[in-house]
Amino acid sequence: MAEHLSQSELDYPFKLLEYLNGFRISKVIFAACELGVFELLMKSPGALSAQHVAQALDANADGMERLLDALVGIEILEVETADGTALYSSTDVANMYLARGGVKSLHDMVIYQSQTIYPLWNNMTDAVREGKNQNHKTFGIPPEEVFEAIYRSEEETLKFMGLMNSSWILDGQDVVTAFNLSGFQKIMDLGGCTGALARELAKAYPSSSVTVFDFLEIVEIARKHFLQENDTFTFESGDFFLGEVPPADLYVLARIVHDWSEEKCLRLLKKLYHACKPGGGVLLVEAMLLENRRGPIMTQLFSLNMLVQMEGRERPPSQYTMILNQSGFTNVQVCRTGKSYDAILAVK
Amino acid sequence: MAEHLSQSELDYPFKLLEYLNGFRISKVIFAACELGVFELLMKSPGALSAQHVAQALDANADGMERLLDALVGIEILEVETADGTALYSSTDVANMYLARGGVKSLHDMVIYQSQTIYPLWNNMTDAVREGKNQNHKTFGIPPEEVFEAIYRSEEETLKFMGLMNSSWILDGQDVVTAFNLSGFQKIMDLGGCTGALARELAKAYPSSSVTVFDFLEIVEIARKHFLQENDTFTFESGDFFLGEVPPADLYVLARIVHDWSEEKCLRLLKKLYHACKPGGGVLLVEAMLLENRRGPIMTQLFSLNMLVQMEGRERPPSQYTMILNQSGFTNVQVCRTGKSYDAILAVK
Repeated sequence: MAEHLSQSELDYPFKLLEYLNGFRISKVIFAACELGVFELLMKSPGALSAQHVAQALDANADGMERLLDALVGIEILEVETADGTALYSSTDVANMYLARGGVKSLHDMVIYQSQTIYPLWNNMTDAVREGKNQNHKTFGIPPEEVFEAIYRSEEETLKFMGLMNSSWILDGQDVVTAFNLSGFQKIMDLGGCTGALARELAKAYPSSSVTVFDFLEIVEIARKHFLQENDTFTFESGDFFLGEVPPADLYVLARIVHDWSEEKCLRLLKKLYHACKPGGGVLLVEAMLLENRRGPIMTQLFSLNMLVQMEGRERPPSQYTMILNQSGFTNVQVCRTGKSYDAILAVK
Repeated sequence: MAEHLSQSELDYPFKLLEYLNGFRISKVIFAACELGVFELLMKSPGALSAQHVAQALDANADGMERLLDALVGIEILEVETADGTALYSSTDVANMYLARGGVKSLHDMVIYQSQTIYPLWNNMTDAVREGKNQNHKTFGIPPEEVFEAIYRSEEETLKFMGLMNSSWILDGQDVVTAFNLSGFQKIMDLGGCTGALARELAKAYPSSSVTVFDFLEIVEIARKHFLQENDTFTFESGDFFLGEVPPADLYVLARIVHDWSEEKCLRLLKKLYHACKPGGGVLLVEAMLLENRRGPIMTQLFSLNMLVQMEGRERPPSQYTMILNQSGFTNVQVCRTGKSYDAILAVK
């Protein structure tokens, strides 16, 4: 008997209706982030009325009340009624993850999902029909150059970098400690973007040197907007597809392989194989599919995201092992973290 | 201690990430419906490969494989691997609710949610800011005349009618039997659209006469596309806001009051009060909010939907009671069905 939704769905499809309404739940949270609801409630010394929140955020009181009530319904805010007036307050979860500026804030991830990913997914049917990304239909950008689309303006670049940053704020520590990497002296995070993962590497392996390697314009924005005072990692700029890759003992490719076709990944991994000395290695950080195709659902959704936005895909461990072996790397080890991103280590 | 998301979210926000990705789950199901995946699998005598499904539906094999895998991940399809090929098959839930044409099919609801509601919700932030619907920004239609927007073309009218029809296929029987209505001889479903709720009324109360009252063009489309051979209810056309309402013992207003401002609802209900004889009544069918503002989340989402698409709102029982009493009706009884829609009965 294969797994499937509970038979009680045949009496009334509660779970299916939840799925069909999932987009509305997402947009409730997205709208609240865009309006600044969570910062206001976090900073307020007491609970606030909908009217107060609306006035402070230059929004409509009736609309705000409905939004706040829905956030109470999904237990992201709290409400109490005093003298007939509903007073709303924040929760630990909202303060930690949804208010802007906290150390674990996912605010930038939310903004990118709301403004870039949500409209792209409106063209998912066409993506499946055509087998290619929908940047053109959604944003009028040519589908060939996926990173030119992502980096099409400084505003879009910053939003995308915010997304990447949020990911490693959440998952960075788990993926860098999935294996003991302390034996690698020089660690280079290729396409390391804002440096959020490099920061976790530098914290976990204080005797290694950690470098972020990315396009010059990304390095400049990272230095300006994301670098923290006590950061110990460094930046180097270049193009790891077109140019040379500086020597290192461990190359980290975090959510890089999933962007590209197998042929392009092989080309990159062979280049890294030749750049490292024996004993050197490569750490892939990706969300891995199960071999049996039954999940994880989040990774299956990411793979569809690669279809609608990029040219790559998510893969199960067997495919990463195959690509790594074909590039010359051996002793492939796979570690599932149980969270969104996993780690794969291979050596020369 | 107020309710909120589990404290374990502070270690890792699994539930919050599920909410943020809810829109992707919705669109997985929507895309599969739009492509015809569920009909194909339902009719197929055996499980099919992604390539087979893609070829039959004129889609890309790789894209289709990712979509089918995600449907397996949410347990709406099943997969088995034979000789290295993944073979996909349907489930009872998919056959019953997602394949087109079944007696309980929600296919038309899905299409409307995907093509009309999903894009509207992309402007939720502006709806909350402005406190008004986003028909203009989303579709270029003036915001004042909400039903002119919904009925802006025959195609859109049919889609909307499909949505309404799906709702009563699912919830009709529960709401018409929430109270014993057999004492009402002549039942008139105002704004009864396709007749799906009238059909349930006629089945539950065979000795009553049931009439659908709606705009002439809606009645014509309902007769052409939705009437079934053994239907015993009749149609009558008119405009219950602008014109007269024919006499009846019970007026049904199913998802009508929630479309409008309190002032407009009062005007309509007073008209019905004058049209009925003593002993006559009105049955409101709506999704009701809880008085304590904590849910149901589905109704809270519907209320935001009214904001982004219409000019009304969802209400708790106390507000329906107040409006009904102000219109002259008494003995207000409220019945929560525990499903999406509830019933409120009041008499003259």
